[in-house]
Amino acid sequence: MSLRRCRDLRAVRLDPRKTLLIFDQRLLKRYGSWIRKFPFRYSVKSGESLKDLKFFPKHVEALLAHWPEAGAHEVCVAAFGGGSVGDFAGFFASVAKRGVRFVQIPSTWLAAIDSAHGGKTALNVKNAKNQIGSFHAAEQVFLVRKVLLDLPSERLQESFGEVFKIALLKGGALWRQLKSHPISPERVWRLLPKLIAAKMDIVKRDPRETLGIRSLLNFGHTLGHAFEAELKIPHGEAVALGLHFALNWSRQKGLLLSNQEGEIFAEQELFPTRTTYDKALRRLKKPLLWLKQDKKRAGGSKIRFIFLRRPGYPVILTVSMAEIDAEIRRQRRQVVSVSRFH
Amino acid sequence: MSLRRCRDLRAVRLDPRKTLLIFDQRLLKRYGSWIRKFPFRYSVKSGESLKDLKFFPKHVEALLAHWPEAGAHEVCVAAFGGGSVGDFAGFFASVAKRGVRFVQIPSTWLAAIDSAHGGKTALNVKNAKNQIGSFHAAEQVFLVRKVLLDLPSERLQESFGEVFKIALLKGGALWRQLKSHPISPERVWRLLPKLIAAKMDIVKRDPRETLGIRSLLNFGHTLGHAFEAELKIPHGEAVALGLHFALNWSRQKGLLLSNQEGEIFAEQELFPTRTTYDKALRRLKKPLLWLKQDKKRAGGSKIRFIFLRRPGYPVILTVSMAEIDAEIRRQRRQVVSVSRFH
Repeated sequence: MSLRRCRDLRAVRLDPRKTLLIFDQRLLKRYGSWIRKFPFRYSVKSGESLKDLKFFPKHVEALLAHWPEAGAHEVCVAAFGGGSVGDFAGFFASVAKRGVRFVQIPSTWLAAIDSAHGGKTALNVKNAKNQIGSFHAAEQVFLVRKVLLDLPSERLQESFGEVFKIALLKGGALWRQLKSHPISPERVWRLLPKLIAAKMDIVKRDPRETLGIRSLLNFGHTLGHAFEAELKIPHGEAVALGLHFALNWSRQKGLLLSNQEGEIFAEQELFPTRTTYDKALRRLKKPLLWLKQDKKRAGGSKIRFIFLRRPGYPVILTVSMAEIDAEIRRQRRQVVSVSRFH
Repeated sequence: MSLRRCRDLRAVRLDPRKTLLIFDQRLLKRYGSWIRKFPFRYSVKSGESLKDLKFFPKHVEALLAHWPEAGAHEVCVAAFGGGSVGDFAGFFASVAKRGVRFVQIPSTWLAAIDSAHGGKTALNVKNAKNQIGSFHAAEQVFLVRKVLLDLPSERLQESFGEVFKIALLKGGALWRQLKSHPISPERVWRLLPKLIAAKMDIVKRDPRETLGIRSLLNFGHTLGHAFEAELKIPHGEAVALGLHFALNWSRQKGLLLSNQEGEIFAEQELFPTRTTYDKALRRLKKPLLWLKQDKKRAGGSKIRFIFLRRPGYPVILTVSMAEIDAEIRRQRRQVVSVSRFH
């Protein structure tokens, strides 16, 4: 995979005769003139329903009708959109004609930081996320400054879960830079290569998630997915809530020092606060149902759960569903006892 | 991939707790007691409609409901059936949870000789074959003597196209053995390892079909697919007809000596005769339509076509649609002029 940082879309070089552009329809308004350069293009509505396997056959029929005239090995599928567009287009690219070239132009911070990198593609089956998918890395990811800096500033917030996750896993200078300054789009743009490199360090050691190393990237995701699925919270924010759960549990286990947990998010106003987390945890009615559908089970009812000793020092422990359930109850009781004093 | 030759199904060792068995429902009658050993099993109706992408989402929902309790990396999808079952199950295995283990137990000669080996999986989109698929080799292929020898002898005939294709590509001793003795199930069983090895020699040099070498295996398939799609002739027999076209054209081009073409099929009573081929060619109304949907285009309107100089010496030439069209017309005129004398 190669990363290309570009000022604007004009610097994104793709051969329009050999490219099948799959793009988020909402981008047409602002970037229509660039999109219309591609005779083979396909507009999609982003979001989880795009990733629903049920609709995949209809999309494929339409996509094959837009297929470039070039030979199968020359055709390149390009995704211009956020995470759901990248997941969908990447999966299509991995199975169309048994696999064709793929490039990504992420249009959201979350995709630019996380989902465009590492080669995971996926579709959902009913309510269960990412049950069908492949490993099909984009050969190029274009990071386009203008596209990202043009985003409304609140879109940055939905990336915070993944930003903090990566920085906590990496530790060192990346973590110190992040925690000590308020986050702004300009700062994240400058940190992007380091955030991506930190993720790719983990991916390269376990590209197909067979060795257990890649499960580090699930830090914050175990409960994060439950928040996302049940409370319909955007992925990045749900992961931020999941990080609260993981750090809280890490402290309870004596892995993380008590003062560190507070310190970790203290400076970041945009990050969900402990109060927000407590409220969300109370609203979660059936967390285990979502966990059971989660495919990251290490076998049977066991899950690899990522704890933190301190930034840069994650710990993978295999825990049972019963232990997760007990910890959710414990954290809920903690909430209740805290609120008694208010 | 490893090949296992077994006397009967009892020798097929699969852990029933970790195996998801996808099997042709017609096998239940004869092999029910073995099939029912697997608590996670899924019965399918074989044939091209099984490979229709349109029905894939429903199958996936049902398959995930039959998913073994074991961890994703331990689960193994096993296909017990012919080519369509293997293609379907292999594709499912390649994308379920982003890819799980896969084994094949071919129940037809055609699958045992050809489709179970080489890692190609595929689904169809509307009338276009194999538009969606992957490369996902079975880690084991079990060749079960009793299953194959139990087949009605006419089922052997449908494998002849692929048998002759491989033997003509390989030449040498394999070709001499095949052409000089009438084919029987017992003889094909003994030749199986050599036929498979000859195919795998080609596959290993170009596993993902990116170098052009693997297109040798399309020998006889260019027009074969048209016969199959339009005249609803079984794949193997359609390929045998396609071989007639390719050999006839090879002779016309001066690549193949005239007497060799006759010699090639003279001894094999079960192989479609020249008269059968001529009749089929006349019934073909829109061969180019099928060719255009075929994804093996070398780019634009060009196709890699496999000619033969003599057994063991194939030649790949890039030809245009117009040239194929002209050759079909020429061979049709040849038919007409021959039939005038009858």
